Amino acid sequence: MNLADCSSHSATARLLHFGSPGAIYLRRFVGSLHVGRCGSNPTHVKTLRLRSNPPKTLTVTAAMASEAELAASAKIIDGKMVAKEIRDEITTEVSRMKDAIGVVPGLAVMLIGERKDSATYVRNKKKACESVGINSFEVRLPEDSAETEVLKFISDFNDDPAVHGILVQLPLPKHMNEQNILNAVSIEKDVDGFHPLNIGRLAMRGREPSFVPCTPKGCIELLHRYGFQIKGKKAVVIGRSNIVGMPAALLLQREDATVTIVHSRTQNPEQIVKEADIVISAVGQPDMVRGTWLKPGAVVIDVGINPVEDATCPRGYRLVGDVCYEEARKVVSAITPVPGGVGPMTIAMLLSNTLTSAKRIHNFQ
Amino acid sequence: MNLADCSSHSATARLLHFGSPGAIYLRRFVGSLHVGRCGSNPTHVKTLRLRSNPPKTLTVTAAMASEAELAASAKIIDGKMVAKEIRDEITTEVSRMKDAIGVVPGLAVMLIGERKDSATYVRNKKKACESVGINSFEVRLPEDSAETEVLKFISDFNDDPAVHGILVQLPLPKHMNEQNILNAVSIEKDVDGFHPLNIGRLAMRGREPSFVPCTPKGCIELLHRYGFQIKGKKAVVIGRSNIVGMPAALLLQREDATVTIVHSRTQNPEQIVKEADIVISAVGQPDMVRGTWLKPGAVVIDVGINPVEDATCPRGYRLVGDVCYEEARKVVSAITPVPGGVGPMTIAMLLSNTLTSAKRIHNFQ
Repeated sequence: MNLADCSSHSATARLLHFGSPGAIYLRRFVGSLHVGRCGSNPTHVKTLRLRSNPPKTLTVTAAMASEAELAASAKIIDGKMVAKEIRDEITTEVSRMKDAIGVVPGLAVMLIGERKDSATYVRNKKKACESVGINSFEVRLPEDSAETEVLKFISDFNDDPAVHGILVQLPLPKHMNEQNILNAVSIEKDVDGFHPLNIGRLAMRGREPSFVPCTPKGCIELLHRYGFQIKGKKAVVIGRSNIVGMPAALLLQREDATVTIVHSRTQNPEQIVKEADIVISAVGQPDMVRGTWLKPGAVVIDVGINPVEDATCPRGYRLVGDVCYEEARKVVSAITPVPGGVGPMTIAMLLSNTLTSAKRIHNFQ
Repeated sequence: MNLADCSSHSATARLLHFGSPGAIYLRRFVGSLHVGRCGSNPTHVKTLRLRSNPPKTLTVTAAMASEAELAASAKIIDGKMVAKEIRDEITTEVSRMKDAIGVVPGLAVMLIGERKDSATYVRNKKKACESVGINSFEVRLPEDSAETEVLKFISDFNDDPAVHGILVQLPLPKHMNEQNILNAVSIEKDVDGFHPLNIGRLAMRGREPSFVPCTPKGCIELLHRYGFQIKGKKAVVIGRSNIVGMPAALLLQREDATVTIVHSRTQNPEQIVKEADIVISAVGQPDMVRGTWLKPGAVVIDVGINPVEDATCPRGYRLVGDVCYEEARKVVSAITPVPGGVGPMTIAMLLSNTLTSAKRIHNFQ
């Protein structure tokens, strides 16, 4: 690995800080930093035409790749670019709403305790709001706050007409009941989409959730914007967490895929993954999914963001996905990189959910 | 087919009348009566030891079957017998509760309109309640009732301490909004388990639904009582309805199976079903799943109850499942018959949910 690689991974580390509930979840799964690489070649990216309107063409960067290698490598699903596109669309809509009815969408973010990573996530969410013109409201409470105090703030935000989305940064201090606190957020302002009522509606045909959880929504949005067909396809979701795997499976199911969830108790996961046209992996195991696990031509969305030791990188580590990228890109037809794949989409979807909420509350089309 | 067969199917038709939401749903799926049989041999049943406590031995009926044929045929999962066992357990518990704290569980059933089948279902639910000592409360409203009137009754039942479960018989008259009405039932008394909050909790790890929908709960109960392992097994659910397929898949997932849902948009469903150790079918397509679709040794739970024309039967039709029973029993290790499989379990689970509700409300262990 050369320094250029490390630089890009260093950029990734910053992307990780655009923290999301998904990223928080993944942190719980990663073990100690590990050494070892599943592939040996540097990353290639090639031209890919998006099915957005108007179609856009990505920049080609194919340093160190021969034409033959390029032909054999997968399309890169550029989450960073799509997220930017979505944020631009949100900026336009926020402005249009403000001009038309004088309402600016507002997101309230609560941070309890002094975790540095959580503070960074909250700061980045605030920055992201500012960048698209959404108001942000921040409450910081000390680690030893009472649960009742947190609930009081949530109750106030529930009643506040300037607030259209409420997000409680996780994890909470240990003495607090996460379920109680998340359930206190009004279903109309649950922009995280984690309320069981939202999840129930997501699972049920003929029902519509108020909000779809941000990370899985970002995965599906990537498939949509790149024009990959979901209907009738075999999809495998690796991981069954409440905030990524399970809702991702429900979303794919809603789009008429034939969905299988692979998890820690699954026997021969590689055989099941091998049959999938679409793979969404969200387990937080670095390079777990090898090239041999993947069906030729499959589309891979890698939600994992896992630090692995790398002395050649300035920070001493680099970030990799759940899927061994170097092996996978030789087999599949398209794949999200880590970083720059799903990561940037999560916060874009949070902004999107906040805008949706404001539009719904004010009946603005 | 001889008359003896028809007699048993006639008995089945009565079982269908022990209607359940599942049965109602299935009625929507069945097309016109059709002619034709997937298999040719009469049904065999053989001895099967249950893993209940104490183990019980089923009666053997093997008329017209050679020893060799018997050896090649599947175990019969006797839902009728298990349902009776469960109802006996409920009777004991209801009596114990009454003696200890003077509380009798109560189920309120609402019937709106004059549908004969719905009236039969409601009557049978009432009878089932009586048979185990549960109080039943019945409200019948005319077809042209106002939605507000129905909502008023639901509200009263929600507040009534003698009522621990509320069931609104579906389908409702067309001018009523089913979603509004079902959502009005208190989550604490939603013994059908159809509330999206219940479904959300069912989908989420670490959450517990107040109630599990009766038909899928009955399917899993059969697997449990016969001692079939679910954890780590490949399970396929055919059908994705809100009241059977989808919650059945969520239940299997909670039990650590690797679950795939097959539906109308699935390509090559037979290939996917063929890999399953456990198959739950709930599509309402007579004899759709052929013997060739099934993995040798699989366990099959057939939720379908489909009428097919049969001039040799007194009623002119007989009932069959989604799975071609005659072919399947030569391939799989165990299978539910239709009738006498899942059908009797649904109403047993409704009684079980009502008892659970009363125990929870009165904090009775």
